[in-house]
Amino acid sequence: MKLAYFMDIPLEEVNIEGAKNVKIRWLISKKDNAPHFAMRMFEVEPDGFTPYHTHEWEHEVFVLQGTGSLVSKDGEKEFKQWDVMFVPPNETHQFRNTGNDLLRFLCIIPHPEQIKKPEKRKNPLQGKTVSTC
Amino acid sequence: MKLAYFMDIPLEEVNIEGAKNVKIRWLISKKDNAPHFAMRMFEVEPDGFTPYHTHEWEHEVFVLQGTGSLVSKDGEKEFKQWDVMFVPPNETHQFRNTGNDLLRFLCIIPHPEQIKKPEKRKNPLQGKTVSTC
Repeated sequence: MKLAYFMDIPLEEVNIEGAKNVKIRWLISKKDNAPHFAMRMFEVEPDGFTPYHTHEWEHEVFVLQGTGSLVSKDGEKEFKQWDVMFVPPNETHQFRNTGNDLLRFLCIIPHPEQIKKPEKRKNPLQGKTVSTC
Repeated sequence: MKLAYFMDIPLEEVNIEGAKNVKIRWLISKKDNAPHFAMRMFEVEPDGFTPYHTHEWEHEVFVLQGTGSLVSKDGEKEFKQWDVMFVPPNETHQFRNTGNDLLRFLCIIPHPEQIKKPEKRKNPLQGKTVSTC
């Protein structure tokens, strides 16, 4: 069993095109022998955002602190502490910090080999580590 | 996409043998068409606890507020706000509130049909809703 304080888990830069001032902690991952999915914590600075993008896996998100907006094809929706968000597979999305303080949220994703894929489609990230949200 | 405040998601009793003063909110589940796993929030009163039990699926846990202890075959380990816990499959465990305030934590589990099972073993809860932690 693993029991750890979040601050004791490394904070890593997210250097992905379209992301600004975003960092990540892999709280629970394959390194812990988690069989199905990974729990990550994202930290987004007041002027930061994740990429506006889409992919074949879902996000299950819980906002720990701060305020922001969820951007999608339907526009921008504000979120706050202890809001929960579900981004289905293949829906374009972005998380933006719209406040003056650090935004922290959890984002859980399936391991790449767990992703249910429609036939005739391929996931180019299959087998790779997914560091974006 | 779903965006909801946790308080707007129903709080349900957990009436399972071995549990005391535990409630659950299914924040993200199959009802949201989540394809792989469910995010639940547990609320445990100061004198409450989840069952001391084991099963074939893992828990990925994040402590939102309060203090408690994780009981396993190795004894009892204290946890606090913003601690993260990983309980691997088939490890006996229990979450106890050891503080004077409400304990709230997230607990993410795979959908029953997603569970990787060793051959020759069967999961009696296969296909049923798993309300325990």
